[in-house]
Amino acid sequence: MNTFGNVFRVSLFGESHGEYIGIVLDGVPPGLDINQHDFMNDIERRKSGQKGTTTRIESDEPQLISGVYKGKSTGAPLTILFKNENKRSEDYEHLKNTPRPGHADFTAMKKYNGFNDTRGGGHFSGRLTLCLVAAGVIAKKIINPVVIKAHVAEVNGQTNIEQALQDAIHKNDSVGGIINCSAENIPIGLGEPFFDSIESLLAHAIFAIPAVKGIEFGAGFSSTKMYGSQHNDAITNAEGKTRTNNAGGIAGGISNGNELRFRVAIKPTSSTPQPQHSFNFETQKVENIEVKGRHDLCIALRVPVVVEAVTAIVLADLSLRHKAYRL
Amino acid sequence: MNTFGNVFRVSLFGESHGEYIGIVLDGVPPGLDINQHDFMNDIERRKSGQKGTTTRIESDEPQLISGVYKGKSTGAPLTILFKNENKRSEDYEHLKNTPRPGHADFTAMKKYNGFNDTRGGGHFSGRLTLCLVAAGVIAKKIINPVVIKAHVAEVNGQTNIEQALQDAIHKNDSVGGIINCSAENIPIGLGEPFFDSIESLLAHAIFAIPAVKGIEFGAGFSSTKMYGSQHNDAITNAEGKTRTNNAGGIAGGISNGNELRFRVAIKPTSSTPQPQHSFNFETQKVENIEVKGRHDLCIALRVPVVVEAVTAIVLADLSLRHKAYRL
Amino acid sequence: MNTFGNVFRVSLFGESHGEYIGIVLDGVPPGLDINQHDFMNDIERRKSGQKGTTTRIESDEPQLISGVYKGKSTGAPLTILFKNENKRSEDYEHLKNTPRPGHADFTAMKKYNGFNDTRGGGHFSGRLTLCLVAAGVIAKKIINPVVIKAHVAEVNGQTNIEQALQDAIHKNDSVGGIINCSAENIPIGLGEPFFDSIESLLAHAIFAIPAVKGIEFGAGFSSTKMYGSQHNDAITNAEGKTRTNNAGGIAGGISNGNELRFRVAIKPTSSTPQPQHSFNFETQKVENIEVKGRHDLCIALRVPVVVEAVTAIVLADLSLRHKAYRL
Amino acid sequence: MNTFGNVFRVSLFGESHGEYIGIVLDGVPPGLDINQHDFMNDIERRKSGQKGTTTRIESDEPQLISGVYKGKSTGAPLTILFKNENKRSEDYEHLKNTPRPGHADFTAMKKYNGFNDTRGGGHFSGRLTLCLVAAGVIAKKIINPVVIKAHVAEVNGQTNIEQALQDAIHKNDSVGGIINCSAENIPIGLGEPFFDSIESLLAHAIFAIPAVKGIEFGAGFSSTKMYGSQHNDAITNAEGKTRTNNAGGIAGGISNGNELRFRVAIKPTSSTPQPQHSFNFETQKVENIEVKGRHDLCIALRVPVVVEAVTAIVLADLSLRHKAYRL
Repeated sequence: MNTFGNVFRVSLFGESHGEYIGIVLDGVPPGLDINQHDFMNDIERRKSGQKGTTTRIESDEPQLISGVYKGKSTGAPLTILFKNENKRSEDYEHLKNTPRPGHADFTAMKKYNGFNDTRGGGHFSGRLTLCLVAAGVIAKKIINPVVIKAHVAEVNGQTNIEQALQDAIHKNDSVGGIINCSAENIPIGLGEPFFDSIESLLAHAIFAIPAVKGIEFGAGFSSTKMYGSQHNDAITNAEGKTRTNNAGGIAGGISNGNELRFRVAIKPTSSTPQPQHSFNFETQKVENIEVKGRHDLCIALRVPVVVEAVTAIVLADLSLRHKAYRL
Repeated sequence: MNTFGNVFRVSLFGESHGEYIGIVLDGVPPGLDINQHDFMNDIERRKSGQKGTTTRIESDEPQLISGVYKGKSTGAPLTILFKNENKRSEDYEHLKNTPRPGHADFTAMKKYNGFNDTRGGGHFSGRLTLCLVAAGVIAKKIINPVVIKAHVAEVNGQTNIEQALQDAIHKNDSVGGIINCSAENIPIGLGEPFFDSIESLLAHAIFAIPAVKGIEFGAGFSSTKMYGSQHNDAITNAEGKTRTNNAGGIAGGISNGNELRFRVAIKPTSSTPQPQHSFNFETQKVENIEVKGRHDLCIALRVPVVVEAVTAIVLADLSLRHKAYRL
Repeated sequence: MNTFGNVFRVSLFGESHGEYIGIVLDGVPPGLDINQHDFMNDIERRKSGQKGTTTRIESDEPQLISGVYKGKSTGAPLTILFKNENKRSEDYEHLKNTPRPGHADFTAMKKYNGFNDTRGGGHFSGRLTLCLVAAGVIAKKIINPVVIKAHVAEVNGQTNIEQALQDAIHKNDSVGGIINCSAENIPIGLGEPFFDSIESLLAHAIFAIPAVKGIEFGAGFSSTKMYGSQHNDAITNAEGKTRTNNAGGIAGGISNGNELRFRVAIKPTSSTPQPQHSFNFETQKVENIEVKGRHDLCIALRVPVVVEAVTAIVLADLSLRHKAYRL
Repeated sequence: MNTFGNVFRVSLFGESHGEYIGIVLDGVPPGLDINQHDFMNDIERRKSGQKGTTTRIESDEPQLISGVYKGKSTGAPLTILFKNENKRSEDYEHLKNTPRPGHADFTAMKKYNGFNDTRGGGHFSGRLTLCLVAAGVIAKKIINPVVIKAHVAEVNGQTNIEQALQDAIHKNDSVGGIINCSAENIPIGLGEPFFDSIESLLAHAIFAIPAVKGIEFGAGFSSTKMYGSQHNDAITNAEGKTRTNNAGGIAGGISNGNELRFRVAIKPTSSTPQPQHSFNFETQKVENIEVKGRHDLCIALRVPVVVEAVTAIVLADLSLRHKAYRL
């Protein structure tokens, strides 16, 4: 299913080289101020064009084709389209028989019996994260005054981002990185025990972002090296403020009013300029493969705003659900 | 929602000190052999009683009260109950006003306006993972011949598990650990692009397990320190066999036929025997708190079979969905 | 799926001759007063023992095994069990090869490849409506001050119910009837455009009741014989009060603040004492069949409280959802 | 939620006078032949322009913007857009303060706090059924060789449709009607016990069509006047063929292999040319209201193809789910 959420729900569609990509938002409360201009800052943050990112430039103007009237959300499903402009389908034709390592080429072919749209990754393209960013803009309005902030904390294991990127360009190879995300002002009580814990839903949404290979909340994997007496966060007042925040703002799967914190691992961009090996289904042999096209050496650079967006989507859903149960 | 899954769906209920805990399984295909005996091995693996685990012993006999007839699944909802026997509610009474650090005491109180069952963690109790294990036994039958194996890879940062446990006992403090999980014979094509990627659904289910604070697939966080040319797994034959398996058996969110691999971070047991601080709502002061009751020093020891169970639940759902779309 | 609802969700399980039948309620707001005694009135109304109803008498004591603590709902899943006591499985053994007309015997056999529990209708038994009634008791508390009332309006086409029943007993044949249901004090704005219209959800839930074959809202089928000028309900004040109520309290799929009204068609009890024909799978011939067991001549008599219950379940879900979208 | 379905799922969006209306189909099996031309026959059947229908003519060309590649479904979400061309928003401006009887004007205003798009009914417009028809075209392909046929059986209580329409034109008043729908070749076993009975899901979807006020399966309301011995359908062979079909092809909520049959009540078009009364929120008085715009005197004429479409959508979902549970 390409749908996510319970009360605030998003449905994603489109392909990299189709006419449009888009997203439908169901459950947007009526009366939110919504202008096309609101989207531009986050869309700009996601854009390529920086060092280490692709040269495919598109205007990325959101078209709000439903659910908005006179600058306000109406309460009806809100649909956002983006036109695909800068397509170079010929880049991909020769790769048809040789699935690119790290990409969905092989799995999509098998899953869909060869009927999948192969141009530019088709529906699996990272371009669809543009729609998530747009949905995130609406979600951020719903959860106001919650403030979510994500940034690149490491590239290729280094905190000196600039140097790591220079190194990647020099090596002509792709690299990954780590995104740190935090959110403040989250009300106490979001999330459900077990299956809809706040960690469960955030992890679910974060792993929907292509290239994500890990997530940890609070002290995360480091917590496995701590004693309980070190790890536990002492509660220090009636609002639940804790002395430390190893839990990342979550106890028992429920937000505890402290800052939400998690880290996300982004693998190196699959489309490295370096030569690779893959199986050629025509010749039935393992062969060298060169991935052409215009790609990001470090896709992680573009991911923070996407992480923020899906975090906002999860928190918007949980916030609306939370209100439902207050008698 | 305490429900998870789309076509194979589980609904969890119960409290640590209630009369029963249980789980309803919807979408179990008819005709599976199901005997009470089938559950005992996995239930035994989850049980306390080993070094570093609690002395609360219960018989944990599953009662199959619906959906099974003459030793076969009927296709109707399958319900499993477990009676709670060995309850010591008095252990918890004095903690009412002082939420235990690391537990859901504070968040549950706030979320449910003080109406939550506080005895032994109530609905938030790790005891409910017993139901997940039982559901996992059915799920494993559905996904046969897939074989899932999880084990404790580290305790308190050490691969010498025995020594780490001795150290915890000596220190009289709780510790965490890392679980490695792998699964073989998974068909190619399970998982959906974006929101229902196999990573999304597995992470969702894994974070439903209390004490989980991180998950990574394949090379995971280490992948952020690799170049693309190192990280990409070269495809070497028509069945999608890869030379390396940094992706953990997943490409584009879809199973690629190689071994599924992921690692799970388990924080130290919240109920450490060490003295801690918390806010006392009666005195309105931060005070020392001692967590009594019978607790595991290292809850991670009991988690592998739970990890296997929720993995099986996810794979069962995806396997059944996969069949739905074959024309 | 045996689950219904979005924010307030019920999951039904059990078989007529199993050990228990039951229902899990997810999304019950915390703090509702819940005592076992609350259930008895509605359970009594559903019971057999009246003229025209079966002689199978059971105590039908609800066991609240989760989600209730100190007489209040906790916010965690609330589970209700009923023990099956008065079972006569032998009544059904000889019918194995000859599916009873009007029952699910044939369709269940085919759907579940013969693995379904055949005793007393198994999971298809009308006995499971007892669980719906119990869930309805909780739902009615959630939607308070909405008051739902259903009654038998016709039996076998006659409004003189008593006489129609005497006639059925005299003819020794089963009969059907029509249930009228109304609800007052429903807030304006429940229901969603298109798929989750209030009619859609009510019809969905009402057709979950065995033996229901039709539903109409307001003037219903009669409206097809009216001119628009006759049918339209003139709005007469700012609260939306209408002069007539041909719409049954619904406009555009949304509650309009007037009385909700609908009628439900209940077919004659399938288990008529009259001889019938069916195909014998053993002899491969059409043969006479006599349906033994203790059955209601007019099951419609027991349905009103079930109609009320599922109506309350739908309204509870819509009420909670409604609150979610208020900013 | 504007989403319907479990494994085959549709999400509807758009407003009567917005730029586009559309629908997203999730769960379309890959490899179906899909050409734009396939849609024209059903779209034509829905169109206005016949006697008794509106003069608003639009080209209604479906734009397939995702999920189709080289004339085949890809397995990714399939999105269909329709451009709104022939809009006359000025027709509606003066009605802002006086909600039209029978329409959603009042309920939508209350539900969405006045933020709803009021032009031409906004999201509540019958124009959105065009999207359902388009989705139905895909659904019919999925369920092939099932054949669904719906037609107008009565207008204004008369089976002589032509005369009833002449009478409506003469009276200058709107009229309603009854749609009969049947489907052949449905496999045995579709539908689930209780909540997802085939009647539950069909009724759910049928009531999503504006103006529907009743539904009955098989003998429906007439069955309430029959004895059980008359009503029960004798099973006459091993394939479940029944002598009569009072059940409408359904037993226990599950398809029994006989023809599926149901009838749908359509109320008279709300926009009658006759003068009516409504409350004026500006003057705070009940006043005469005249509904301008171009409207169908008998909307029922355009509904059969919509009934077929939502029936196909339900059967497609149930067919795909059915396959999921075959081991």
